[in-house]
Amino acid sequence: MPRTRPALPATGPVRLGPDSRAALRPAAVGIDTGFWQARRASNAHVSIPQGPALLEAAGNLHNLRLAAGTAVGEFQGAYPFVDTDVYKWLEAAAWQLAQASDGDLASDADPASDADPASDADPASEADPAPDGDPAPDADLAAEVGRIVALVAGAQQPDGYLNTWFQLVKGGERYKDLRWGHELYCAGHLIQAAVAHHRATGSGELLDVARKFADHVDSVFGPPGSGKPIDGIDGHPEVETALIELYRETGERRYLDLAAYFVDRYGHGLLGGEAYCQDRVPLREATNVEGHAVRQLYLLAAAADLATETGDAELRTAAERLWHAMTTTKTHLTGGLGAHHEEEDFGDPYELPNERAYCETCAAIASIQWSWRMALLTGEARYSDLIERTLFNGFLAGVSLDGERWLYVNPLQVRDGHTDSGGDQSARRTRWFRCACCPPNVMRLLASLEHYLASSDDNGLQIHQYVSGRYASDLAVIRSETDYPWQGTIALTVEETPAEPWTLSLRIPQWCREFRVRCGQETYEGPVADGWLRLERTWSPGDQVVLELSLEPRLTAADPRVDAVRGCVAIERGPLVYCLEGVDHPSGGLDDIVVDTTRPLAVKHRPDLLGGVTTVVAAGSRRHLPEAGWWPYAPADESPDSPQQDGEPVELTAVPYYAWANREDGSMRVWLPTS
Amino acid sequence: MPRTRPALPATGPVRLGPDSRAALRPAAVGIDTGFWQARRASNAHVSIPQGPALLEAAGNLHNLRLAAGTAVGEFQGAYPFVDTDVYKWLEAAAWQLAQASDGDLASDADPASDADPASDADPASEADPAPDGDPAPDADLAAEVGRIVALVAGAQQPDGYLNTWFQLVKGGERYKDLRWGHELYCAGHLIQAAVAHHRATGSGELLDVARKFADHVDSVFGPPGSGKPIDGIDGHPEVETALIELYRETGERRYLDLAAYFVDRYGHGLLGGEAYCQDRVPLREATNVEGHAVRQLYLLAAAADLATETGDAELRTAAERLWHAMTTTKTHLTGGLGAHHEEEDFGDPYELPNERAYCETCAAIASIQWSWRMALLTGEARYSDLIERTLFNGFLAGVSLDGERWLYVNPLQVRDGHTDSGGDQSARRTRWFRCACCPPNVMRLLASLEHYLASSDDNGLQIHQYVSGRYASDLAVIRSETDYPWQGTIALTVEETPAEPWTLSLRIPQWCREFRVRCGQETYEGPVADGWLRLERTWSPGDQVVLELSLEPRLTAADPRVDAVRGCVAIERGPLVYCLEGVDHPSGGLDDIVVDTTRPLAVKHRPDLLGGVTTVVAAGSRRHLPEAGWWPYAPADESPDSPQQDGEPVELTAVPYYAWANREDGSMRVWLPTS
Repeated sequence: MPRTRPALPATGPVRLGPDSRAALRPAAVGIDTGFWQARRASNAHVSIPQGPALLEAAGNLHNLRLAAGTAVGEFQGAYPFVDTDVYKWLEAAAWQLAQASDGDLASDADPASDADPASDADPASEADPAPDGDPAPDADLAAEVGRIVALVAGAQQPDGYLNTWFQLVKGGERYKDLRWGHELYCAGHLIQAAVAHHRATGSGELLDVARKFADHVDSVFGPPGSGKPIDGIDGHPEVETALIELYRETGERRYLDLAAYFVDRYGHGLLGGEAYCQDRVPLREATNVEGHAVRQLYLLAAAADLATETGDAELRTAAERLWHAMTTTKTHLTGGLGAHHEEEDFGDPYELPNERAYCETCAAIASIQWSWRMALLTGEARYSDLIERTLFNGFLAGVSLDGERWLYVNPLQVRDGHTDSGGDQSARRTRWFRCACCPPNVMRLLASLEHYLASSDDNGLQIHQYVSGRYASDLAVIRSETDYPWQGTIALTVEETPAEPWTLSLRIPQWCREFRVRCGQETYEGPVADGWLRLERTWSPGDQVVLELSLEPRLTAADPRVDAVRGCVAIERGPLVYCLEGVDHPSGGLDDIVVDTTRPLAVKHRPDLLGGVTTVVAAGSRRHLPEAGWWPYAPADESPDSPQQDGEPVELTAVPYYAWANREDGSMRVWLPTS
Repeated sequence: MPRTRPALPATGPVRLGPDSRAALRPAAVGIDTGFWQARRASNAHVSIPQGPALLEAAGNLHNLRLAAGTAVGEFQGAYPFVDTDVYKWLEAAAWQLAQASDGDLASDADPASDADPASDADPASEADPAPDGDPAPDADLAAEVGRIVALVAGAQQPDGYLNTWFQLVKGGERYKDLRWGHELYCAGHLIQAAVAHHRATGSGELLDVARKFADHVDSVFGPPGSGKPIDGIDGHPEVETALIELYRETGERRYLDLAAYFVDRYGHGLLGGEAYCQDRVPLREATNVEGHAVRQLYLLAAAADLATETGDAELRTAAERLWHAMTTTKTHLTGGLGAHHEEEDFGDPYELPNERAYCETCAAIASIQWSWRMALLTGEARYSDLIERTLFNGFLAGVSLDGERWLYVNPLQVRDGHTDSGGDQSARRTRWFRCACCPPNVMRLLASLEHYLASSDDNGLQIHQYVSGRYASDLAVIRSETDYPWQGTIALTVEETPAEPWTLSLRIPQWCREFRVRCGQETYEGPVADGWLRLERTWSPGDQVVLELSLEPRLTAADPRVDAVRGCVAIERGPLVYCLEGVDHPSGGLDDIVVDTTRPLAVKHRPDLLGGVTTVVAAGSRRHLPEAGWWPYAPADESPDSPQQDGEPVELTAVPYYAWANREDGSMRVWLPTS
């Protein structure tokens, strides 16, 4: 149903300022069916609605009431940043409300429907309370948001300060422990929630709270000589992107300047000089990402935003350099980031363990946030390549298919006989965390996902990620139908277009070795420049473009410096990383499996499995291991590592990594030994 | 100089009780020259003498004065167990005094002399203040011990309780936080120090303090129905071995019973059921070692002691089962134990990372303590095989050659470009730690090392470890001369012997593929039973036995389930694990090195290097890595892992692992890729 002007969704998490130097502008997308709509349905119908009860049970809302003086009792929670769980939930709920209010772009289908009706047969989807035709309870959600916004507003102190931990537990110690206090971090998440709430609902209620806090922060923090009482930064970067977005939302330049001040004060020893707090070296001089992964990534997202808004070329170069260093040396195959449990640290170059991969779900989200800003700034497709990989793997594994259980860390291997002491960093899915940063972070990203998928510039529209629905800029509207990532065909139809020629740019994924584009009578297999296939022409409504990406499953090897996966391959198909799970290999565990790389991989779609997944079947074997003595090391010429042909043949069934741990708490591995 | 009856050293850390079921009894050894004497010289002349000043600077002694009321101020230190640093130092000093007082067994040489005079040319040994002829300052040490024993005695409360943290910081909260309080752990180290002090000096001053505390503990802790107020255990096992040794020293059966009660109460949820505290499963039911490595190992040492003293067959079987499970699945090549930084945990079976190997120095020590008890209990040589491996590698790396700097964790790899946030768990040697458990633990083991080397039974003498000096039982004295581990020849001469036949048993190391024993006119190459070559005959003074162990350097591979080292080999020679250090490979780093396993290894003794070491030289190459794109993963059939013959040839110089990090804070790796 073509319209003369599409109803664009409310602006998403990133809106460019009037002086922006970005190469691209975010464009609007309506997702209506398919892979991501199913995941968003769980988010909309399970994860987000359950939030308030979980925040109530954990005491977060109680703390706000205590701070407001409307309840009595003790502060609940173990961390000074527990308020951010509320703020991130509010942000998620706001984006969800925004989706509900701009259904036009996704009007051909029920936004709550699951793409795959056969998935009802799967146990994992039985728990999915998003039956076809059940409308999202938007009114209920709006009421919950209103209630919780009022709680937040009530907790704010007269001068704008707001942090229930310090107000209730550490009265009078404001800004005395910037390294660990997280006060500005909390302000940042409050501001982001407020911007989302304003963009989604038009209400200024939360934005007023946020501005008051931001003004307070601006009155306190500033460089020496500014007359502000404190020259300081927060141990956990986050307020910087928030302030920049508040500048974009309000036009108030002070917020941008404050963010720029904060970003440049990291790395000068104000926090003791620790890499953990991003304080060892200034970003402008850094040669690789380091320290606490989420802190590093939020700071880099702010650097990208600053370069976008101010044209700071040195900061842009630093962000590009660090992104390249990160992807080449410190990124897991899943897009997961952070090699150490200890200090949630990036670790050394090429130090990418499997069982102890940290890969915090929040780090995946922060990586997407940073990469999207880099994509907009530079116009280069590789940033969206990493976003795609991260979305489908390292990020999505963080939430169960039913939207009810979470992983804080995302290992690439769980061994046979794994014992787990539980806790937040468990390799087992958990209902909620003591440090509950990840679940509402997942919610806010899924609820705003459509804002990370496409962009426009003066020459046309760029499709970064392939979904079913509509891509719209102020220039044109494109209808997309696809069963991606299960099928590689993306059928695009021009619905609205100006008479003048413009360029439709399609990202050809980095993983793709073969593709074809049919456009009318013509077929293209290139050229691809900077990751883009560009189709410049005069378009007419009804024009069709069909992109076919070859989804041949493949075996992937790592740079030989990644010691942890030497002699191994991983199975991938399209953007999906695959893994073996113990539950699919009942004849034994996974620790003695060898994959036969000389035999072809087979693909089998299994609508009954895990909400409907395409599995990849490989030939393998189980090692015949001699009865062990007491010492597992032996002269290399007597090694028990017998050739694979001596083992017992076994069919290896790989499932997408994002879907692991949805059936049982068993073993899992992404990287498979080849001998 | 044969004597009719050797002057045996004072009894060491383990003395068997009158009803012991041990197969073997500890025998006395006097070390006079060679490898271990050099290491003990650093301990005697640097590490131990520096202890009091370091304990003063860290506040440990100050805390004792505060508790005694002889000083004013605040408690110093971050942990409730800081008193144990003092106790372990006292134990070390006591064993050192014991050595000084039983010089007869090592009378042919200056006990302080370094075996290798050429080592003076090495920078590492320049700092070694143990010049030939400089006598150990025993009087000074004895005075220091007396002074600190008095401080400890002064801090004790009238009812026998003693813990400065609780006395000064947590007054009145005794035994309220057993999971973390470490009160019994502290009691354990006090008791061990007191037993050592008593055995070494004959003084009962510290033993009285310890007994008073033990009696207090015994009055408080006991099973339900015992009438004791608390049915509980300490979060950190340690008091159990101490109580058993106190029983052995005093004959007081109550201490043994109390230890037995404690050991059996672990695993029943008294501490919340966490594996970390050894509380998930009782030892008798456990199938593998788990949780915090040092806690597990101290508990298992107590289990071995209990089985020894009580004949508890189930406990013995559990200890044997767990030792086998540990060595087959959770032990690094160096003998190091503990795979996780987080919670200092054992990790899963076959989870044996390199860069993040924890391998706490204390865990190596605890492993030696446990294995020695198992060796005595069972008479089987494999326990001493592990002791040898651990002593020469995972343990000894924990202290610098000059005795001044320490490693708390002992990784098997440090990457090029490693960044280190410092702190106790740094991969860089440190002068002292915030949690200073390891340094005085190293001191006490080195000072009592001679007690872990030999044993006797009614049939004769067993030599477990080969050193230069004298092995003596109440039956016979054997003089040993060797440059082991640099040379494989051990020349033994019978100095004293009864007229009746008896059996000299020589441990043939597990790593040894070829050996020969010449005894008079005869030559043996076996048989080896349970790890022992047994020579039963009628001996005469002057009889010579020459054991030749082949020290051909070798390449070692791991069980294929040890994923972290797939496609790698390690260089070993004799009991020594070798490593590459960046400092020896200035043409580039170690991350792109490949070893050529088809070329022979060469051996070169370097008296100038690292106090005198034998290096192993291997042929290798540096990979030619193509200029990387931004993504380090690629289809396996396009992998950049080019064959080694395409790389640039490079000579690889391996040094003993124990000697690493004595020149610069560079890169290091034990496991070397083969392609």
